[in-house]
Amino acid sequence: MPVIAIDLGATKTAAAVFNEQGDLLFSEIHQLKKRKGKEVGALLQQQIISLLNKTTEKKISITAIGICVPGIAYAKTGKVWCPNIPEWDDYPLLEELHNFFPDKKIKIDSDRACYILGEVWKGNAKNCSDAIFLAVGTGIGAGILMNNQILRGCNDIAGAIGWMGLDRPFHEKYISCGCFEYNASGEGIAKVAKEMISAGKFKESELSKINVDQISARNVFDAFDKNDPFAKKVIENAIECWGMAVANLVSLFNPEKIIFGGGVFGPALKYLYAIQEEAKKWAQPISIKHVTLEGSALGTEAGLYGAAWLAMKD
Amino acid sequence: MPVIAIDLGATKTAAAVFNEQGDLLFSEIHQLKKRKGKEVGALLQQQIISLLNKTTEKKISITAIGICVPGIAYAKTGKVWCPNIPEWDDYPLLEELHNFFPDKKIKIDSDRACYILGEVWKGNAKNCSDAIFLAVGTGIGAGILMNNQILRGCNDIAGAIGWMGLDRPFHEKYISCGCFEYNASGEGIAKVAKEMISAGKFKESELSKINVDQISARNVFDAFDKNDPFAKKVIENAIECWGMAVANLVSLFNPEKIIFGGGVFGPALKYLYAIQEEAKKWAQPISIKHVTLEGSALGTEAGLYGAAWLAMKD
Repeated sequence: MPVIAIDLGATKTAAAVFNEQGDLLFSEIHQLKKRKGKEVGALLQQQIISLLNKTTEKKISITAIGICVPGIAYAKTGKVWCPNIPEWDDYPLLEELHNFFPDKKIKIDSDRACYILGEVWKGNAKNCSDAIFLAVGTGIGAGILMNNQILRGCNDIAGAIGWMGLDRPFHEKYISCGCFEYNASGEGIAKVAKEMISAGKFKESELSKINVDQISARNVFDAFDKNDPFAKKVIENAIECWGMAVANLVSLFNPEKIIFGGGVFGPALKYLYAIQEEAKKWAQPISIKHVTLEGSALGTEAGLYGAAWLAMKD
Repeated sequence: MPVIAIDLGATKTAAAVFNEQGDLLFSEIHQLKKRKGKEVGALLQQQIISLLNKTTEKKISITAIGICVPGIAYAKTGKVWCPNIPEWDDYPLLEELHNFFPDKKIKIDSDRACYILGEVWKGNAKNCSDAIFLAVGTGIGAGILMNNQILRGCNDIAGAIGWMGLDRPFHEKYISCGCFEYNASGEGIAKVAKEMISAGKFKESELSKINVDQISARNVFDAFDKNDPFAKKVIENAIECWGMAVANLVSLFNPEKIIFGGGVFGPALKYLYAIQEEAKKWAQPISIKHVTLEGSALGTEAGLYGAAWLAMKD
C-alpha cells in the first residue's frame, strides 16, 4: 500500500507519497516561516490533506502516514519534543492527527530513528537487522536499529551519542553538548579551530585570515584541502573522536553497518578510511571485522524515506 | 512449570531446579577438574539426568532447560565459544543436548546475558524492560536488555564493553584487553598499581611492601581502606573510568537501571556514589536522571537465576 511520509525539519516540512517499491509519486515542501505550536500542526494537516487529494484523483488508496520529527518522539504518549520548533515542548502530535485522520494508521519517530530506517529500506543498510546511522551535523546523534527494532530506551532518548565521553578528564566546555559533540560535530570542529586560533596557535594558518567568530567547519575542511597543517590538526582531532566513537559502537552493539550522514558527512566522507583505521585500534577485535562503514545513500532524504518505511513496515 | 538451570563456569558447573516462583528446589555443583571438550558436555548431561531423576521422584515435570555459558552463545547455530574451557571453541552444545533430551526446550546464552536476566527476574532489575548488568571481574562485560530483549548484535558479541575507549591517545597496553578493561577490571586495577610501583611512584605506599608481581585488586582495595594515598590514586583512576562508562551507557541506551556485579563489585560497591557523580558530568542530562545504579542482588547466583529465567520466560 502506498503511504504518506513527512519529514519535519526546523525550518521546513517535506511531505511525499511513496509506493511500496519506494518510488516517490508526489511531494510537497513548505517553509515553516514563523509558525509555532498549533500553526505547525495545522501546516502538517494541510500537507496531508493536499497529498490525500492528489492520491484520490489518481485512485491511490492511502492507509498509513509516517512522520519524522526533529527531536524526541514519545512512544507511549504520542507526544513530541522538538527544541527548534517553538511551543513543541510536549506537543500532542499523534492525538491531533488521529482526530483529523481517524481512519489512518499514524506512526511518528525521531529524525535519527528515521534516518536508519530509510537506509535499511532504500539506502546502504538494506537487509541489515543491526545497523547504526551516525548523524553528524550541527550536533551528533545516532539512530540505532538492533534485531530490526529501533532502540528507544526507557524515555525514548537512546542514541544521544554526542554525550559520549572519550577523553579524560572532564572539561567545563563539555557541559552544554557533551565531549564527542564538542570535538567532532560541525559546530565542534569550528569551536576547536576557534579555540586554537584564540590561543595563538594558528598564526600561520589559512584560517587566521577569517574573522575568528565566523569560522565554520566548511572553512576548516577547505583549509585542510589546501594542506593547511593547522586545519589538519583540527581534522585529526575529529577523526580520532569519530574513530573512537565507531569503536565504542562496534564493541557495544556488534552491528553489521555504521552509516555516516548529516551535513558533515558530506565533506568528511573522504576521511572514512582514516576513521576505520582509528576504530580498529580500540574496538573488540572480532566485531570490528564484521562491520562496514559507509556514507548515507539517501543524504538529505534519509528522514523522508525513513518516515515512509515507518508507515509501511508493520 | 519448573525448569532446570545450569551455570557453567570456567572451573565448575552449578545446576538447579527452580519453580515458577523462583524457589530453588534442588541443586548440584560439580568441579570441571581437567575435563575438556566432550567430557564437559557429558558432565552437563549427567547433571541434567541426575536432576531429572530427583524431579521424577517428586512428581515434578520439567519441560525446559536453560544454560549460562562463560563465553559466546551463537543464537543461529546453537554452538558456543568458551575460551576457558579446552576444546570449546565452536562446541555444538545445543545440538548435543537436543539429541540427549529431545523432548525438552533448551535455551543457551552467555553469562553476561544471564546475569541481567537473573536480576530482572529475581534481583534488582525487577520489572525493568531496559536494564544493563556491568560485570567487573578479571575482565569486564555488559549484559544489555533493551525492550525486554537481550541485545545480541549480528554475531552475538554485543556488550563487549571492556573494549570501550575512554582516554586518548591509544596506548599499546590496550591491545590485549581494551582501554576500559585495562584501567578498571580486577586485573586492570592490579596492573595500574604495578605500573605505578614499577615507575617508582609508590615508594611510600602500603602496596610497595608486597612483591610487585603478586599485587591484586584486593590489596589495592585494602590499602585504600587504610587511607593509603597511592592506592587512592589507583582507585580514583578506576572510578573515573567506571563513571565515564556508566555515562556512555546512559547516553546511548537510556536504561532504567545499571546493575554492578562481578568480583570487583563486591568491594567497589562502596564507590557507587562517586561513580554516579562522575557519570553525571558526562552523560546526557535527562537520561542520567532516569537511571538508578545498584549492586547485584544475586551475586554469584545471578547466572543461575538468569539461566532459569531464560528457560521459563517464553
